[in-house]
Amino acid sequence: MVKLPESLQAAIKSFSMLPGVGEKTAFRQVMSMTNWTNDELDQFSQAFSALKDIKFCYECGIFSDKQICEICENDYRRGSGVICVVESLSDLLAIEKSDQFKGIYHILGGVLNPLLGIGPSQLRIKELERRVKDYGIDTLILAISPSVEGDATCSFIKQSIGDIKVERIGFGVPMGGSLEYLDSMTISKALENRKQL
Amino acid sequence: MVKLPESLQAAIKSFSMLPGVGEKTAFRQVMSMTNWTNDELDQFSQAFSALKDIKFCYECGIFSDKQICEICENDYRRGSGVICVVESLSDLLAIEKSDQFKGIYHILGGVLNPLLGIGPSQLRIKELERRVKDYGIDTLILAISPSVEGDATCSFIKQSIGDIKVERIGFGVPMGGSLEYLDSMTISKALENRKQL
Repeated sequence: MVKLPESLQAAIKSFSMLPGVGEKTAFRQVMSMTNWTNDELDQFSQAFSALKDIKFCYECGIFSDKQICEICENDYRRGSGVICVVESLSDLLAIEKSDQFKGIYHILGGVLNPLLGIGPSQLRIKELERRVKDYGIDTLILAISPSVEGDATCSFIKQSIGDIKVERIGFGVPMGGSLEYLDSMTISKALENRKQL
Repeated sequence: MVKLPESLQAAIKSFSMLPGVGEKTAFRQVMSMTNWTNDELDQFSQAFSALKDIKFCYECGIFSDKQICEICENDYRRGSGVICVVESLSDLLAIEKSDQFKGIYHILGGVLNPLLGIGPSQLRIKELERRVKDYGIDTLILAISPSVEGDATCSFIKQSIGDIKVERIGFGVPMGGSLEYLDSMTISKALENRKQL
């Protein structure tokens, strides 16, 4: 077999470190990059080097240029008395996109998972307790995925957070979803969560 | 909407420059990279910076650390009197993988395509003519994809290369292919290229 130059091999190997990228995809991507100008290559490699300096909002845990992010800084939002607890930044962005929630967020950084060694101290639960006191929060909305681990995380937060209202987002048939193709867990959740018209 | 930090946005934008990578994929990849260590990020960004210095084999046009690549340097392979002409490095690697061809290669860098402004001077056809003379080549194998442009490129090479044997790889039903699902162009090629048993 032909041996590709070290630099190409290194680039392909680097690409394969990404989730969902195998050797074939990495090869194809690197091949397309060999047609790039030096400026484009520089820009590309600097962009990832800059990720080293990324900061987190001290309050909610979102990536932020400043110590406190836009949302947490905003008095109007902070004054609502509600914190929406999410697993990750992606979940936060999904909720922001719906434009239905106007309070502040709290990113847990995952869910409890004893098998993977993720206990309460690996998640940002202590910070949540502090913020609930500091801001005089009266309601927590747990926007955590329905799974065994998610359920356990919700119970844990409910127990440890003290005497405030703790709610969990609703589960059921998604909009545009067809009952025919839904799994039975979702159907049973939907039946359980039925509402009077 | 929340505004993500500049550095994250830049990284996502850089990723979206790659073929087949949309904003969602780019976002997911960059999110996973935020969990990387500084060393990993450095290694990643250096790997792509190094692509600037990539060299090509003077003879066949393959990416190479040296001026002449392994294959072209190899007397045994050069002595075979056969050049296999391919469009791209990927095609070359596919042929090498089959382990059936032992001669040298020539990468054209594409096929003739007047609509995209690719004429004979954009391809490495002059180099091919020189090599045919230099090495005393008596056979060209054109391993060029079957398409209108590919066919035109083959005719052009045949005409310009002078009086040596020019062959094109065979087209027909692929191994494991089912006639039922093949397009009619392939079927008619397969019928045309039938062989007596």
